[in-house]
Amino acid sequence: MADSLIDLSRQLDQFAKDREWLQFHSPKNLASALVVEAGELLEHFQWLTEEESRALSPEKRDAVGTELADVLLYLIQLAMALGLDPIAAAQSKLKLNELKYPVDRARGNYKKYDEL
Amino acid sequence: MADSLIDLSRQLDQFAKDREWLQFHSPKNLASALVVEAGELLEHFQWLTEEESRALSPEKRDAVGTELADVLLYLIQLAMALGLDPIAAAQSKLKLNELKYPVDRARGNYKKYDEL
Amino acid sequence: MADSLIDLSRQLDQFAKDREWLQFHSPKNLASALVVEAGELLEHFQWLTEEESRALSPEKRDAVGTELADVLLYLIQLAMALGLDPIAAAQSKLKLNELKYPVDRARGNYKKYDEL
Amino acid sequence: MADSLIDLSRQLDQFAKDREWLQFHSPKNLASALVVEAGELLEHFQWLTEEESRALSPEKRDAVGTELADVLLYLIQLAMALGLDPIAAAQSKLKLNELKYPVDRARGNYKKYDEL
Repeated sequence: MADSLIDLSRQLDQFAKDREWLQFHSPKNLASALVVEAGELLEHFQWLTEEESRALSPEKRDAVGTELADVLLYLIQLAMALGLDPIAAAQSKLKLNELKYPVDRARGNYKKYDEL
Repeated sequence: MADSLIDLSRQLDQFAKDREWLQFHSPKNLASALVVEAGELLEHFQWLTEEESRALSPEKRDAVGTELADVLLYLIQLAMALGLDPIAAAQSKLKLNELKYPVDRARGNYKKYDEL
Repeated sequence: MADSLIDLSRQLDQFAKDREWLQFHSPKNLASALVVEAGELLEHFQWLTEEESRALSPEKRDAVGTELADVLLYLIQLAMALGLDPIAAAQSKLKLNELKYPVDRARGNYKKYDEL
Repeated sequence: MADSLIDLSRQLDQFAKDREWLQFHSPKNLASALVVEAGELLEHFQWLTEEESRALSPEKRDAVGTELADVLLYLIQLAMALGLDPIAAAQSKLKLNELKYPVDRARGNYKKYDEL
């Protein structure tokens, strides 16, 4: 796993071991926890217009940051549980997306984007 | 934003700019996309037992890695759109969790975990 | 369970029994399946503006209807598995909402709405 | 829309009109709200074993019922906003599932189930 996430993953591993929580951290459960946190993240935006979502108050922005952190913490724990490197996986996926959405055909075209 | 995610965030920014997609990338839309991908991640586990989820085949593990990558890519884009540093946010949240779940009271106790 | 859902719940029960699938239909798994389908429903809207979402093409509207059906089918199965009556639960919740959001204070006020 | 849901849909429509909330109820927003509530529903199950999820305490069962109600209330509002009949859509989908999963091939076979 790449540099900046290594510290986090070590701390999370120690955190769970200290509390004897690894028994609850099956990939199935971690994937559930991740989607639950992603829902809490979306909750902040559900009644906002797109414009409003681009201009959050500092308090709201911090609250969103906390939910985003929760998603990332479960993502790292899920990756650890499965022996996956999230940065390497993201780099591979980004390369795929570059093939899937050639610049000249995808430019400004959310319909194509939407259909894939 | 910390080291290993900086490359990814730059590449994602360029990717979206080249395709003129930033217009679609409001925080509201990115949060929706993130939860949609989190759902696709969970889909791989929904009918598995916890034990089965701890012993995925290599193919299934790769497929899960691709969905996990999608979640991370939207998470980074959402953080950029809001000017948040995901690693710093995760470190802060982890500190909060250490206060919230003292080792001696939280040990092996998923009920407390569950109720917060 | 109220009238129109009774037929559906009976058919779903028979469907699962015929295929010996009740063993997979723990409330935990059904709740996962429900959120996965809810994500697929949201996927249709993630890059649309609100205005566009109010004016779907007939094909898109049908596709959304199919995802909405999937959510409802899992919702009914989860209710059955737990011995809950979804219509009665919805009526109770609606009464609570009437107390929680008095007309004169909630009128046109999404902020209050948002904060609860 | 079929019988038992008609009352609910009328009440919900009046509820939103009285509060001038229809302006916030675009299909895009309602689909977001639905997935947020589905996440809250799943939250009750995320650290439970499947067995535990089959044997909820009465208090937990009621709490789950409230979240399930929230999902249903948004589902009905989304169906209304799009002019869809959720019961008819569910009946059509169930018919499709009967073709997709023939009894003799699907029996006890979650793998096939999982792959579709």
